[in-house]
Amino acid sequence: MPSSPIRKLAPLANAAKAQGVKVYHLNIGQPDLPTPEKGLEALRHVTRKTLEYSPSEGYIGLRQKLAGYYKPFGIQVAPEEIIVTTGGSEAILLSFMACLDAGDEVIMVEPGYANYISFAKTAGIQVRTVTSTIENGFALPPVEAFEEVITPRTRAILLCNPSNPTGYVYTPEELAKIKEIVLKHNLFLFSDEVYREFVYSGKPYVSALTLGMDENVVVIDSVSKRYSECGIRIGMVVTHNKQVHDTIMKYCQARLSPPLLGQIVAEASVEGVEDYLKECFTEYKARRDFFIQGLNQIPGVVSPMPQGAFYTVASLPVDDAEDFCRWLLTDFRLDGETVMMAPAAGFYSNPGLGRNQVRMAYVLKIEDLSRCLLLLRKALEQYNRR
Amino acid sequence: MPSSPIRKLAPLANAAKAQGVKVYHLNIGQPDLPTPEKGLEALRHVTRKTLEYSPSEGYIGLRQKLAGYYKPFGIQVAPEEIIVTTGGSEAILLSFMACLDAGDEVIMVEPGYANYISFAKTAGIQVRTVTSTIENGFALPPVEAFEEVITPRTRAILLCNPSNPTGYVYTPEELAKIKEIVLKHNLFLFSDEVYREFVYSGKPYVSALTLGMDENVVVIDSVSKRYSECGIRIGMVVTHNKQVHDTIMKYCQARLSPPLLGQIVAEASVEGVEDYLKECFTEYKARRDFFIQGLNQIPGVVSPMPQGAFYTVASLPVDDAEDFCRWLLTDFRLDGETVMMAPAAGFYSNPGLGRNQVRMAYVLKIEDLSRCLLLLRKALEQYNRR
Repeated sequence: MPSSPIRKLAPLANAAKAQGVKVYHLNIGQPDLPTPEKGLEALRHVTRKTLEYSPSEGYIGLRQKLAGYYKPFGIQVAPEEIIVTTGGSEAILLSFMACLDAGDEVIMVEPGYANYISFAKTAGIQVRTVTSTIENGFALPPVEAFEEVITPRTRAILLCNPSNPTGYVYTPEELAKIKEIVLKHNLFLFSDEVYREFVYSGKPYVSALTLGMDENVVVIDSVSKRYSECGIRIGMVVTHNKQVHDTIMKYCQARLSPPLLGQIVAEASVEGVEDYLKECFTEYKARRDFFIQGLNQIPGVVSPMPQGAFYTVASLPVDDAEDFCRWLLTDFRLDGETVMMAPAAGFYSNPGLGRNQVRMAYVLKIEDLSRCLLLLRKALEQYNRR
Repeated sequence: MPSSPIRKLAPLANAAKAQGVKVYHLNIGQPDLPTPEKGLEALRHVTRKTLEYSPSEGYIGLRQKLAGYYKPFGIQVAPEEIIVTTGGSEAILLSFMACLDAGDEVIMVEPGYANYISFAKTAGIQVRTVTSTIENGFALPPVEAFEEVITPRTRAILLCNPSNPTGYVYTPEELAKIKEIVLKHNLFLFSDEVYREFVYSGKPYVSALTLGMDENVVVIDSVSKRYSECGIRIGMVVTHNKQVHDTIMKYCQARLSPPLLGQIVAEASVEGVEDYLKECFTEYKARRDFFIQGLNQIPGVVSPMPQGAFYTVASLPVDDAEDFCRWLLTDFRLDGETVMMAPAAGFYSNPGLGRNQVRMAYVLKIEDLSRCLLLLRKALEQYNRR
């Protein structure tokens, strides 16, 4: 098992904090926005006396509301086609387990969400990657790149759309190409759509469930980022494929049930929060505009303008971004403060790629992001002068 | 993946309920006892505005309180040796993943908790079983039985103590024999101790962590049954083995964090609930005495007297207990009521064993258990007259 590139430097951050240093967390997609008041309110009004198991597939009330949530995106699903999971994390792992046998292969785009690799290892499946580049703004690699890595054991393609870590949003044209490959080779398409609400291009979001290949698509989703309630661990798998659904359910029955309290909060968060979502969207868009512009003004730093999610992968004027990230936590201080980032190499499968890149999450308020930009600028000067 | 014997009949139970039939659930260890008021109170006083990720290993506050909880059992562990998991379920899966490679073997006692097999399959590991028998009160099979199934790929023995599904509590002598085998063959001992509080023999409980083989023992634990809060999904792995701890942590980082809200409830439940635990103990003991005696009074029904947990495996005067359990849900009604049990065959690995047995959880109040006994008696008469 590889260590999580997002969390492996946590001990160094903890040590810095123990010294009284303030650490700004750009390393992790933990939004500082509040959870919807409706969700918190539901928690305060839990009247049940016994906190008992919920159904393995999650409460029907939550699944009904989710089916309603998807409608405006053109996604027509029944509550029976939704399985509630312990976060998007479990949704990914169980989708892998249900659709692939040990030794089968899944194709991912790199840089990609690092934990996909961990879940693939857990499921005993092999990861093949196609590489997107910062020079290209992390657009989908050409179809030929996919064809090159397809083998007789390839069973699936995994897309994260909008992408964590790059913020790239796949275009309808790119998704059409993916559809072509998926159907040609009879693959599954795992589509991680947890950042669906955060698309800044002004163009409508295209879910994999609207591509017209119902049997092939398994959508991974989560309320974590959408409603800033990462801690409640409520995700979901959505698929029209009955066999995949039923197989995932066997795993779900083994682990008994998803978290009860999280489902209560999630159910209260899903409906009637249009204003809340609009505010979050406006806030993230403002942060993106401010932060990415600021990044590109730091000498030697280059970041594409992400069209979605709340991450970016930027290149820094250093040889080894991991060493720089460690140094930030162990050595660099400006007025008792420093900044934590995730080295991007951990988001690539091919060793050597992304060594001068970092992933940053712009999940802090603009005032803090402004401070992070200053810290980063000063730190780079000092690091490169050593 | 096998279907869960505990949950696979759920659709039939749901259909019966939809017809207005009252179904008594003896099939699942879902206690009807209340969660400690302290735990529920903590929930109503959550003041945080953002329900954010918790640390991958769980909150230090909870782990400190747990370390204190273990002391009276003679278990000396530091908070750093405890990892909070998403229920005992995740604790089992991650222990398997961390300690065994695909193809390695673990020895379990059958009948055993059915989901162990599912988690073993998930981890790609092979299960070997030694068989305990109802005639022997489900005591530990002789050492020779273990030696017979040990191969060069054997890496671990898994014990559930007190046992789900049999309620058997291993004696100090039996545990000494297990220790001998573990050390002789350099194995891990996974000890699932989630029913530790419920031992009715009057003798002190012997945890695997007090056997004096620190590097070999991995304890699985959970607050689910202890505090009747199964739905919050909070379990834990406890081990002095640093390497095992660190490997499990890699998996924990990949899935980000255990449920936040469950940790809040669990932390409030762990301390100062001596009276609560005493009441639960007294109640379960009374239920056991009443229920097991009543079972053995039904013609053809035989149940050993379980010394722990809140389950029993009983043999029935039928050829195929699964067929009988189905028939109870689809056909049998007495004044609009029926009873649901788990066919025990699913708790055995060897096909054909336990076919005339069921697992029952005495987690209902005595009045309901009394009704269940009547339903079972009448149902057996009717079923065998058909």
